[in-house]
Amino acid sequence: MDDKDTGRLEAFSDGVIAVAITLLVLNINISPFGPSNNLINDDALWHSFLNKWPLLAAFVTSFATIGIMWLNHHRLFKQIKHTDTGLLLINLLLLMIIVFIPVPTALLAEYITQPDYHAAALIYSGTFFLMACCFNLLWRYASYQGRLLGKDVDPRVVKAISQQYLFGPLLYIFAFGLAWWNTPVSIVFQFVLTLFFALPGRPPRPRYDDANRLSRVE
Amino acid sequence: MDDKDTGRLEAFSDGVIAVAITLLVLNINISPFGPSNNLINDDALWHSFLNKWPLLAAFVTSFATIGIMWLNHHRLFKQIKHTDTGLLLINLLLLMIIVFIPVPTALLAEYITQPDYHAAALIYSGTFFLMACCFNLLWRYASYQGRLLGKDVDPRVVKAISQQYLFGPLLYIFAFGLAWWNTPVSIVFQFVLTLFFALPGRPPRPRYDDANRLSRVE
Amino acid sequence: MDDKDTGRLEAFSDGVIAVAITLLVLNINISPFGPSNNLINDDALWHSFLNKWPLLAAFVTSFATIGIMWLNHHRLFKQIKHTDTGLLLINLLLLMIIVFIPVPTALLAEYITQPDYHAAALIYSGTFFLMACCFNLLWRYASYQGRLLGKDVDPRVVKAISQQYLFGPLLYIFAFGLAWWNTPVSIVFQFVLTLFFALPGRPPRPRYDDANRLSRVE
Amino acid sequence: MDDKDTGRLEAFSDGVIAVAITLLVLNINISPFGPSNNLINDDALWHSFLNKWPLLAAFVTSFATIGIMWLNHHRLFKQIKHTDTGLLLINLLLLMIIVFIPVPTALLAEYITQPDYHAAALIYSGTFFLMACCFNLLWRYASYQGRLLGKDVDPRVVKAISQQYLFGPLLYIFAFGLAWWNTPVSIVFQFVLTLFFALPGRPPRPRYDDANRLSRVE
Repeated sequence: MDDKDTGRLEAFSDGVIAVAITLLVLNINISPFGPSNNLINDDALWHSFLNKWPLLAAFVTSFATIGIMWLNHHRLFKQIKHTDTGLLLINLLLLMIIVFIPVPTALLAEYITQPDYHAAALIYSGTFFLMACCFNLLWRYASYQGRLLGKDVDPRVVKAISQQYLFGPLLYIFAFGLAWWNTPVSIVFQFVLTLFFALPGRPPRPRYDDANRLSRVE
Repeated sequence: MDDKDTGRLEAFSDGVIAVAITLLVLNINISPFGPSNNLINDDALWHSFLNKWPLLAAFVTSFATIGIMWLNHHRLFKQIKHTDTGLLLINLLLLMIIVFIPVPTALLAEYITQPDYHAAALIYSGTFFLMACCFNLLWRYASYQGRLLGKDVDPRVVKAISQQYLFGPLLYIFAFGLAWWNTPVSIVFQFVLTLFFALPGRPPRPRYDDANRLSRVE
Repeated sequence: MDDKDTGRLEAFSDGVIAVAITLLVLNINISPFGPSNNLINDDALWHSFLNKWPLLAAFVTSFATIGIMWLNHHRLFKQIKHTDTGLLLINLLLLMIIVFIPVPTALLAEYITQPDYHAAALIYSGTFFLMACCFNLLWRYASYQGRLLGKDVDPRVVKAISQQYLFGPLLYIFAFGLAWWNTPVSIVFQFVLTLFFALPGRPPRPRYDDANRLSRVE
Repeated sequence: MDDKDTGRLEAFSDGVIAVAITLLVLNINISPFGPSNNLINDDALWHSFLNKWPLLAAFVTSFATIGIMWLNHHRLFKQIKHTDTGLLLINLLLLMIIVFIPVPTALLAEYITQPDYHAAALIYSGTFFLMACCFNLLWRYASYQGRLLGKDVDPRVVKAISQQYLFGPLLYIFAFGLAWWNTPVSIVFQFVLTLFFALPGRPPRPRYDDANRLSRVE
């Protein structure tokens, strides 16, 4: 009965994130019709397909980002076993920001080839900063005095997550600052950040047999 | 085997609500293109983004509303353990109204800055009134003589939900009346109502140790 | 372990049906803008809203239909406990037809006020006839010699479902015939049919204590 | 506890695939309106419906393809019982390609009647080649030294899957080559390939009682 409490929260979150990640494909509109409304030939289709690279890059980036957010959600709820009204509401807030991600991504896809424009990059970075804050809030709320965590949770795993998440908002606000200066650098930095959050947090000073055991934890 | 009966009903409801809540983002269309079909500059993009505040507010409001409806559904099915054809049909009716919510919300988003027009607010309030009725119907049907509830259910939690839900339709019909008179006041009142339903119902006269135990219930 | 086999098939079917039923709302486009692209006034909005009744009726009908199809799926998989490749493929075929339902429904919504046109009603009835056939195929395949049913299944419930489903395709082909003659009569007949499939099949000659037990079955 | 590890990965994958497969229906736009914006008559509607056969064929093909991909995913995760970060990331990559499938399918639907154009068929075949590679990567990663498989897994079933999957990328690269030469032949070949992957892999030299036991494995 101990791990049943969060079942529906996880199922609902899975559903929301699954829909949000799939809707990204609706942004890729490669039309096979030319100006006079007839089918374009092979060369023109290749050209049209390859010219859409910012759309495809935005699709891959957003898919990776939302996917890794799901992975983090999954990782947190390996530790969190109980829910209360506060946790459900914070989780809704987090889902709202994840659902919103396609909007700034679509804007960024248009402006990525315009190094002089910063507004789209700032809206994009700002969204991710808010998301990092929500993830922190969710985790701090649940792990405070361990009240919503499972009883058999490994304290070093909890500590490792807390440490990794501590730097999230700081790094994202740095990315936000970078976007004022140089959009492409900021985007690359943010993509690296996302990959960093794909990795499980390293527990502080693990001994050999712990490390062995922890390799399965994530 | 006692809590398995409602598993698929909950999974299906989670799926429907998750799709409905995610489709809300499709209403936010911030175009980065100007009248002559070229990319607008930073100032114009900020302006366009901030000018879309009714769309963003409608997104946040609807997301919160549907999210809290999910939370209520979740809370009811913590108590309801069995299903029959009647419950499945009432649940479908409730889901139909939840799925419909984006339609009146989109209308309201256009009319929110027009205090002289009431039709959109009335359609919006009417939808919520019907939803409150459906939630009541679902709960009365399931809790009548406790026949679809779990055997180990706390009678005071059941009573608290029944009390809280009793006032729902009355309060929403009051909001409907307000919409004839003053649209913004009605909307604010309804938003507060939604937040009120986010909180778990207070059980009547809890003693200290009960309250302690109940804090984990919802 | 006995009821775990169909878990993922049910979860996937729930997801597909949940998305299909929610996408129906995308057909309801009530624009608050007049010909000169400004907001229409209250009278015009009411008029526009009420004039869309075929869209709203189509939404309600399709939602009820797909919802009741889900209910039937749910009911069958209360009895079916095992899967094999054949069952998974038949289930995919059934899901494909359920996902297709919004297309003929949208057509029918346009033609419902045109009693002289029969094509839309025929496409609509044909889709439902195919769906009834698929449901039968699924059930016959699974219940043949009881090989994919649970061991503790009640043989009278199985027989009741088999009897109820036997008449499905016959009744739907009758509705198809009606559509050649009179579209509205055919639609009403089909809606009544759907409601008939919402009810659990009556087991043949139940005695008192059986009936009592069976009332919880579905 | 042994089979709980992959629960959320499966639920999330089910959700993503369910949404992707349902969105396919959005491509079928059969308009009942003629050039002068009035309802077309029965003959014209039949004509319009039947003229859309490439759209309907593309819908059926894509639905079957994604459905059979789900079936394969389901089959692999009958054997895979544990997850780690690598598996979650490979699974995300696989889901990204599955979600992308509607894009090349929509292109192909337009060019299927143009035997002289090959670009659409090449993009289509290339997508499927990448998908076959991802399925292989997922399976090799999980089954390498059996580390993420269940303990009670049948080694001959594992071997059968490994053998069947070995030929996947080779056959799909052959289909890719065919598309340079003859588009329709390549498409038919690929559809047959998909059906081949719908069947469970034959375990090497099964004896009678094994075959009997394996018939339930799938």
